[in-house]
Amino acid sequence: MKIILLALAALGTLSPLTALAQGADAATLAGTSWKLHKISYSNDETHAPPDPTRYTLEFKDEGKLTAQIDCNRGTGTWNSDAPGKIVFGPMATTRMMCPPGSLSNLVTRDLPAVTSYVLKEGKLFLSLKADGGIYEYASLGNSRAAGAPLPSWKDSSPKRAIIAFVEKVTTDGSPDFVPPSERIATFDNDGTLWAEQPMYTQLAFVIDQVKARAQQHPEWEDKEPFASVLKGDLKGVAAGGEKGALAMLAATHTGMTTDEFNKSVSGWIATARHPKTGRPYTEMVYQPMLELLTYLRTNGFKTFIVSGGGIEFMRPWTEKAYGIPPEQVVGSSGKLKYEVRDGTPVLVKLPEIELIDDHAGKPVGIQRHIGRRPLMAFGNSDGDQEMLRWTAAGSGARFALLLHHTDAEREWAYDRNTHIGKLDKALDEAVAKGWTIVSMKDDWEVIYPPESK
Amino acid sequence: MKIILLALAALGTLSPLTALAQGADAATLAGTSWKLHKISYSNDETHAPPDPTRYTLEFKDEGKLTAQIDCNRGTGTWNSDAPGKIVFGPMATTRMMCPPGSLSNLVTRDLPAVTSYVLKEGKLFLSLKADGGIYEYASLGNSRAAGAPLPSWKDSSPKRAIIAFVEKVTTDGSPDFVPPSERIATFDNDGTLWAEQPMYTQLAFVIDQVKARAQQHPEWEDKEPFASVLKGDLKGVAAGGEKGALAMLAATHTGMTTDEFNKSVSGWIATARHPKTGRPYTEMVYQPMLELLTYLRTNGFKTFIVSGGGIEFMRPWTEKAYGIPPEQVVGSSGKLKYEVRDGTPVLVKLPEIELIDDHAGKPVGIQRHIGRRPLMAFGNSDGDQEMLRWTAAGSGARFALLLHHTDAEREWAYDRNTHIGKLDKALDEAVAKGWTIVSMKDDWEVIYPPESK
Repeated sequence: MKIILLALAALGTLSPLTALAQGADAATLAGTSWKLHKISYSNDETHAPPDPTRYTLEFKDEGKLTAQIDCNRGTGTWNSDAPGKIVFGPMATTRMMCPPGSLSNLVTRDLPAVTSYVLKEGKLFLSLKADGGIYEYASLGNSRAAGAPLPSWKDSSPKRAIIAFVEKVTTDGSPDFVPPSERIATFDNDGTLWAEQPMYTQLAFVIDQVKARAQQHPEWEDKEPFASVLKGDLKGVAAGGEKGALAMLAATHTGMTTDEFNKSVSGWIATARHPKTGRPYTEMVYQPMLELLTYLRTNGFKTFIVSGGGIEFMRPWTEKAYGIPPEQVVGSSGKLKYEVRDGTPVLVKLPEIELIDDHAGKPVGIQRHIGRRPLMAFGNSDGDQEMLRWTAAGSGARFALLLHHTDAEREWAYDRNTHIGKLDKALDEAVAKGWTIVSMKDDWEVIYPPESK
Repeated sequence: MKIILLALAALGTLSPLTALAQGADAATLAGTSWKLHKISYSNDETHAPPDPTRYTLEFKDEGKLTAQIDCNRGTGTWNSDAPGKIVFGPMATTRMMCPPGSLSNLVTRDLPAVTSYVLKEGKLFLSLKADGGIYEYASLGNSRAAGAPLPSWKDSSPKRAIIAFVEKVTTDGSPDFVPPSERIATFDNDGTLWAEQPMYTQLAFVIDQVKARAQQHPEWEDKEPFASVLKGDLKGVAAGGEKGALAMLAATHTGMTTDEFNKSVSGWIATARHPKTGRPYTEMVYQPMLELLTYLRTNGFKTFIVSGGGIEFMRPWTEKAYGIPPEQVVGSSGKLKYEVRDGTPVLVKLPEIELIDDHAGKPVGIQRHIGRRPLMAFGNSDGDQEMLRWTAAGSGARFALLLHHTDAEREWAYDRNTHIGKLDKALDEAVAKGWTIVSMKDDWEVIYPPESK
């Protein structure tokens, strides 16, 4: 009881007992939805979910309860037979294994131990028996179906097509059922998961590396693509595309070890800022696509990146940004060589290109790394055409989607006439074959995640 | 009641009621351990686990119960207050997601519904309430700790070293704790997961392919390595090693699509038989290593193959044989080319080698496919030396193990003086650096799994 009383006293001027007695009655709870802000235990241990909407409670009429517990959903009952008192009945939950760091085990363990609640200033506090701890929830409002998938997607046809497809391949007994081991989803990165204008982020990285080394390389003043970089002629640089970027990467990084390169990328991406928005590049990711990744993984999909960008440029940050671990990143690569330096084994970057994972290289990269044909593939440019075609040609139900950059106001509008992320032939094929096309302007509620505090 | 009575009547000459009345009392159950043979439901649906030891019950003293429920473990209580009657109390179970095809959901749902039991002819029958169905268990004996890890490993120092390492990296609060996302275990294949004598299985495959095509290639009679193959000079062929095998593979498969090659391998491995044992090659796997793979995955590890063998030779069968899916197989590879044939996109095998994933190629393959340093690595020959060294050089606790082929009677005994699977320098380094060395003769109870029926 002690923690509850102290916390309630801390909340305001009410005495603890009065606060409890004035707690809202059951009628006020019914119809409300909540997202988890923080768990506080009596030993001072606290937990705060990075995304509160992954842990929700929906108090429905007639004592019904639904809950999102990270990657699982639960249904059960709730009962409040006196003000401030509440118990939850046994809950039936899905039994997926949520990613590392999940609070799902704590929530599942603690909800049956809840004995009382307080509503105050728009927040819901649930207390565990025997001073166990307090769960603090923030309101999810009544109008949004809390826990419904893809909340940043408007209720237009791409969202409906995605959900209908996922339901038909994951529902037991469906003629299109696909076993979990075959639920492979591949995502292009630049222009599909994060912004690629005014130039590929990796190109911005390489440009900074060239500028940093220019003094040691006087010959670069007359040699392309370095000359354009040093002159600040970004159009010339951008025209070189991924291949030009990789050539500069080779020139600036040959001889470096994979560890050193990893540190170089991590250091740069932690501090570099997008020239238009001033945000870190890792916040130039698309919120609706983050929700799509989560939705697919919740439904047993393995999510992969298949990108023309450098595999080792992406790996230091994609797990944190997208939940996609290094072993599920496929990208362009240069050759590596195993060496022993001062008794320590290292892998050294060589200048030769091993794979350009773009256009016809994408099915090759997919076969090499994954060895399965994707069930769903997502791209945004002609560089994804072969990946989408390869996916759609598979047996059974398959899903191919193109993002169309149509939003000049909130992002950038570009397709057939651009150097970066050109979408031309693939758009025609998508229309002809009935692939799903997303208009970012018309189909998305928001583009980027909220700014971090 | 009907099903129970019919089943019991079918069991023997006892009348159903007498059978129930004569059911063993609680004292007989205590101390017994059982493995699940079959589930029979009243709608005639039956389920039989491929490996009964994945579903066990251990009736301990004082009403304690432990259970293995596929990839999860449970603890609870059992109570029998009259002969033939039994109830199980609520069980606390781990909440891992077991592989597709698991019976874990059924068992978890049904155990609380068990109301009675019969012991007959060394079997245990559990009946579900309301004629729900019958669970038939076979005895696991009293001496083996049912559900304990690595049952086919003798209780000698390699087994203890493996378990001690896994416990220290997976226990919350341990100074050596490693988050699940970093629990990467890599396994060589030939000689580590399955037998490689008298020659690599892939070589046997290629030899059969050469023989099948010999008529169309009269020039092979004078050209190596084909000439040796056609003469039956296996020593000459084996001396060519993995590289010679890949050269023959290129010659016999260039121009073939990845789909066609997959079918070719699947067809061959389904019917080919090992020349010494007459067993399918997919049964020439090491039972203790299968248990090790399962044990590691149960503890949150991702298990990968990192082999000098062909990546596309292994992928058609490693998921079924080892539980290792295609996206977690790393191997040697030739180049691929995307083409459209008759309007269908295909990937075509080219003769150029892309990666020899052996010796110094293994850390390169690991970096390319996984992008993380292994936490544990397992090999058997000098070809694994760099992989083990790369693993051991990582920060924090790391584990490197060599299988030493010392069992001339049950398998083959070879190390420093062999063409296939030579273990020489790596053995010296293992001794010098304190890596774990397994003597298959001294440390393993069995070599291969039981013959399939």
